[in-house]
Amino acid sequence: MENFTFYSPTYFVFGKGEENKAGAMVKRFKGSRVLIHYGGGSVIRSGLLDRVKKSLESEGISYVELGGVKPNPRSGLVYEGIDLCRKEKVDFVLAVGGGSVIDSAKAIAAGTVYDGDFWDYYRTGKAIEKALPVGTVLTIAAAGSEGSGDSVITNEDGMYKRGASGEGIRPAFSILNPELTQTLPPYQTACGITDIMAHLMERYLTNTKNVVTTDRMIEGLLLAMIEEGPKAIDDPNDYDVRANIMWAGMMAHNNSCGVGRTQDWISHDIEHELSALYDCAHGAGLAVTFPAYLSHVYKHDTERLRQWAVRVWGCEDSGSDEDIIKEGINRYRTYLKRIGMPTTMGELGGKEEDIDKLAHSATCGDGRPGYLQGFVKLDENEVKEVYKKML
Amino acid sequence: MENFTFYSPTYFVFGKGEENKAGAMVKRFKGSRVLIHYGGGSVIRSGLLDRVKKSLESEGISYVELGGVKPNPRSGLVYEGIDLCRKEKVDFVLAVGGGSVIDSAKAIAAGTVYDGDFWDYYRTGKAIEKALPVGTVLTIAAAGSEGSGDSVITNEDGMYKRGASGEGIRPAFSILNPELTQTLPPYQTACGITDIMAHLMERYLTNTKNVVTTDRMIEGLLLAMIEEGPKAIDDPNDYDVRANIMWAGMMAHNNSCGVGRTQDWISHDIEHELSALYDCAHGAGLAVTFPAYLSHVYKHDTERLRQWAVRVWGCEDSGSDEDIIKEGINRYRTYLKRIGMPTTMGELGGKEEDIDKLAHSATCGDGRPGYLQGFVKLDENEVKEVYKKML
Repeated sequence: MENFTFYSPTYFVFGKGEENKAGAMVKRFKGSRVLIHYGGGSVIRSGLLDRVKKSLESEGISYVELGGVKPNPRSGLVYEGIDLCRKEKVDFVLAVGGGSVIDSAKAIAAGTVYDGDFWDYYRTGKAIEKALPVGTVLTIAAAGSEGSGDSVITNEDGMYKRGASGEGIRPAFSILNPELTQTLPPYQTACGITDIMAHLMERYLTNTKNVVTTDRMIEGLLLAMIEEGPKAIDDPNDYDVRANIMWAGMMAHNNSCGVGRTQDWISHDIEHELSALYDCAHGAGLAVTFPAYLSHVYKHDTERLRQWAVRVWGCEDSGSDEDIIKEGINRYRTYLKRIGMPTTMGELGGKEEDIDKLAHSATCGDGRPGYLQGFVKLDENEVKEVYKKML
Repeated sequence: MENFTFYSPTYFVFGKGEENKAGAMVKRFKGSRVLIHYGGGSVIRSGLLDRVKKSLESEGISYVELGGVKPNPRSGLVYEGIDLCRKEKVDFVLAVGGGSVIDSAKAIAAGTVYDGDFWDYYRTGKAIEKALPVGTVLTIAAAGSEGSGDSVITNEDGMYKRGASGEGIRPAFSILNPELTQTLPPYQTACGITDIMAHLMERYLTNTKNVVTTDRMIEGLLLAMIEEGPKAIDDPNDYDVRANIMWAGMMAHNNSCGVGRTQDWISHDIEHELSALYDCAHGAGLAVTFPAYLSHVYKHDTERLRQWAVRVWGCEDSGSDEDIIKEGINRYRTYLKRIGMPTTMGELGGKEEDIDKLAHSATCGDGRPGYLQGFVKLDENEVKEVYKKML
């Protein structure tokens, strides 16, 4: 195991009705002038935004608002948010929504107190150490952004989708009420489940040896998702199922199961090109990408992938590595279809003739070195092969 | 799932040689005058204490020392530590040792800033909200105290062993270097493993339904311990094995796998009487207690215990609940013997004629209501039955 630090100081408030504690939590973390950041109309229609505002008001906390975050959040709105926070002397950013809203809020929080262009962090990978404190009221179990120090933004100048990280943008608090996820359409629920599983898989694909404890944690969380996913699709109002998925979504990405081991994240890089170009949901893009990627790279460590197929997908532990792993990937794809996810590029609106462009952007765009490096190293041609496997 | 809050802001520094960052970490958390608290001579002989002191000195941090913590740490030394901290105007308590040292340090940290008797917290269960900040340099993977807001102390006035909890005593930082555990005698290593598994089991024994995610996390961590435990006994110097156990020990008790569900803790209460009376190691006491306890209570929820036997101990999932569960308990006991643990009271120095006294103290001592309540409710007579099963 490699040396590491782990610091996850987010205060989680989990359960029914807990959004009514938003004001008390902002106060606890010394906020007095808040930017409420959100997406489209659903948080207005559901009354959630009003409940959050009321909670702030009852603590005597003033606020300004900025809505309009779209899936695959864009740099334009981030710049707008930064200007607003500076003008209004905001000292706390409260995201009400899913991963896109939270990621956008983190970028605004970092950019507000940064002298240069916030995009510097996303372009260079420089750690974000300073930002306004961020709080979240989560409405979708998916991105894990509620418990992570990560943010992904798409720059409209070139449509590059890039991530940034740092202790500065780990939320001070996150309110997780599983009831809020019960009104999600099944497709969005499934996208969230796929994303959560992908976060676990990106950590599972490691080149570090003998990482038994984190392996077992990841496998356990994957098994929970396999069990709960179809239940959430079949009965959207099962609170316990929603609660299990919501906690798993946080645990999958706060990195307690990813410490001390190399991680992969190539599938995320390959997917980001799909959602940037076709504006598809990130989770749907991952459902298409991940099985194709696994089919391409499994030979790199058949022992690990065999373990995954046996322990996670229940494949019988006899026969050749190749057969068992292929059966595992089949079961993964069958599961994704079962919860309503696409598994081909065409279903996302993707076209074969875009593959050259996608592979070039993934490996060479915006300062990339000509390859992707993680579990394996893939040059532009190999990334093309992965995209072709999605057809 | 029940509503909960989860707040685990400890900064973990994990890996080889990391004790040399003790000074930097104390500084990060604003300590300037430190009490170094430790146990016996091993941290002196190994040179660890000197390395920690050098690290403090290099940051210009002054310190006083208090050694002598014994397993099952006593109130007498806590009072001494509180006096010393007040006299020396200590603003940070640094524990260098295992769970006993950390628990003693937490009690001192709480007592120093409390107007009354520190034992109030342990007697009444009142949450500890205020304490001096505590840091740890962990030398034994076992108690999980390095990442928890819990502390257990034995009051020499009556030999009551009681726990207290609260956000105030969660460590600000914990340094976990698995190398430090390589010099532990096999018996102590095994006691630690048993304790870690017991922390997982106490959470597994819940009356909350449909807690799939935390169930799977616990099962995964138990499987990791089952895999790594014997390896640690057979080759004490396998760094990766030590590292896996050390991280599992933290995860088992920081409560991320215990949220939103009722927990048990009756085995701990029953065991505490054994270690208080016979001064045996807590882990050894648990090895004797837990299988006996399970044999007594499994009928309360055969579905849960069957799941445990099948998923954790690999029992075949066919036949009667009773047979499968008994086989699971057998495998648990066999495993404990394999790593060198006792499984009968006699091996701890216990005697049948003490059972009345043990059961009375567990259920009625120091203000207890006449029964133990957790996964089940056990009155004094039933607790006697559990002790008898240990003979």
